Amino acid sequence: MSDAVNNCSTENSADLPFPDWMRAVQARTEATLARLLPPEEAIPARLHQAMRYATLGAGKRVRPLLAFAAGELTGATAQRLEIAGCAVELIHAYSLVHDDLPCMDDDVLRRGRPTCHVAYDEPTALLVGDSLQTLAFEVLARADLGARQLAMVRLLAHASGSCGMAGGQAIDLAAVGQTLNQPELELMHALKTGALIRAAVMLGALCGDPLEADAEAALDRFAKRAGLLFQVVDDILDCTASTATLGKTAGKDEAAEKPTYVSLLGLEGAREFADSLRTQALDSLAVFGERARRLIALTDFITHRKF
Amino acid sequence: MSDAVNNCSTENSADLPFPDWMRAVQARTEATLARLLPPEEAIPARLHQAMRYATLGAGKRVRPLLAFAAGELTGATAQRLEIAGCAVELIHAYSLVHDDLPCMDDDVLRRGRPTCHVAYDEPTALLVGDSLQTLAFEVLARADLGARQLAMVRLLAHASGSCGMAGGQAIDLAAVGQTLNQPELELMHALKTGALIRAAVMLGALCGDPLEADAEAALDRFAKRAGLLFQVVDDILDCTASTATLGKTAGKDEAAEKPTYVSLLGLEGAREFADSLRTQALDSLAVFGERARRLIALTDFITHRKF
Repeated sequence: MSDAVNNCSTENSADLPFPDWMRAVQARTEATLARLLPPEEAIPARLHQAMRYATLGAGKRVRPLLAFAAGELTGATAQRLEIAGCAVELIHAYSLVHDDLPCMDDDVLRRGRPTCHVAYDEPTALLVGDSLQTLAFEVLARADLGARQLAMVRLLAHASGSCGMAGGQAIDLAAVGQTLNQPELELMHALKTGALIRAAVMLGALCGDPLEADAEAALDRFAKRAGLLFQVVDDILDCTASTATLGKTAGKDEAAEKPTYVSLLGLEGAREFADSLRTQALDSLAVFGERARRLIALTDFITHRKF
Repeated sequence: MSDAVNNCSTENSADLPFPDWMRAVQARTEATLARLLPPEEAIPARLHQAMRYATLGAGKRVRPLLAFAAGELTGATAQRLEIAGCAVELIHAYSLVHDDLPCMDDDVLRRGRPTCHVAYDEPTALLVGDSLQTLAFEVLARADLGARQLAMVRLLAHASGSCGMAGGQAIDLAAVGQTLNQPELELMHALKTGALIRAAVMLGALCGDPLEADAEAALDRFAKRAGLLFQVVDDILDCTASTATLGKTAGKDEAAEKPTYVSLLGLEGAREFADSLRTQALDSLAVFGERARRLIALTDFITHRKF
């Protein structure tokens, strides 16, 4: 493991400039995922190869970054944060594989490469998603994450299931061709994208010392706003960035007649909404002072990202 | 809840004849699943209706029965056993929904009713399976199941994932049209069916007092043999029972050119193999004496079942 990878532990990373810290967490996430996934020669080899294909080598790792940044508020160790971050990332990876399937979004490009069912086949991609979800819970239950580990399993499960991410996907399916108002759109995204973003933040914090109730509530407010912000920016990028930049098919929301913040508010309105969410998210962090500087920088990264 | 349902607690059920005990556990499982699944009016309602459709109202509940029977060896309470049994049953229900999808076995009949993707639609069925899996882990992490609860989450995850049930399904996919020898067929079934049967037994035992190492090893031997026995009998029924009796399409293994114990050993050979597995499974229980009588009766039920 390179020095950059080791340096992202919260003990040693205080002096790293943000871009270096980000690269270090991304590298550590990649190395941890490579270690947690079954080796590609393990039987059934084709399934394990496809699981690694769908998870490794690409991705911004926004959720592990949020977990590491939130862990700085509670003095969490990097050894715990890498597990919590990778568990969330495995859930995210499973959801992408299933969302891309022909019966869902029927997409052929993801992270600049053919989607899993294109590179392998449809039944394998189904099992890849199923197995990545299972691995997320196995990983989270296997390491020693301290006294609140069962609460972490519950939190990740609730955020991922029918009252969280998968539920948001179901609302999204039902909304194709429909006009949603802003509260309906916010509920859909609060579940589809927001629930897992929030889980990443709260799991990171749970890896360290308990927060006071007030601070925990403030962090939760931040996490909800950051989750919504992430989705609004996603909607903006879907209609302003190119397929080459995004590494996934651009413009597909409009093509699929999906309601988005851009279709609801217009491009300028969506940008203003993103700005106000950014301000609200940063306001929620005020209580943490200097300890929140990684979360503050990440909020700006999420707002201004180009892909 | 009826008296029959309450009577299956290990404290009160000692005197029930086996068929009554079985009905009581099945009724308790149904009631617990109905309580654990989100109500069908909860948003997203269609997804929750479909999750309940795929899980409730049918099924032999073999895995919860095994959990309850194994719990008698360790003095586990019914309150814990119903959670452990339902967590395994939720994993089983998810696997059936995904296995029936067009890209997998493409089946239209399950438990005497249209499969989930036929009754609803394919993307909903995909999300139903995904959400039932998540719910299994949420349920197992939410209740108070004692000191070894994290070990239970790990055990269920390992049994369900790419080195367990989903891995067996991947081997099964790759084996269509192939000739497997008996060790290869046993590995496939040890994963595809056996891993979850074994998990049901071991989770039931883990709900109570710790077993001595010798007794735990004996129970594990039993669980492995019972899992294989269940699959051999399944293969026999697939080619001897009618679709009406099975509640699922009969004869589909042969139609799909899937290797089975019947195609490998012939019908008579498969029956002899089932008999020898039954004897081995019962031998493994000898160490438990009278406390294993529910497991013994269940082994006979698995061997002689007609559907």
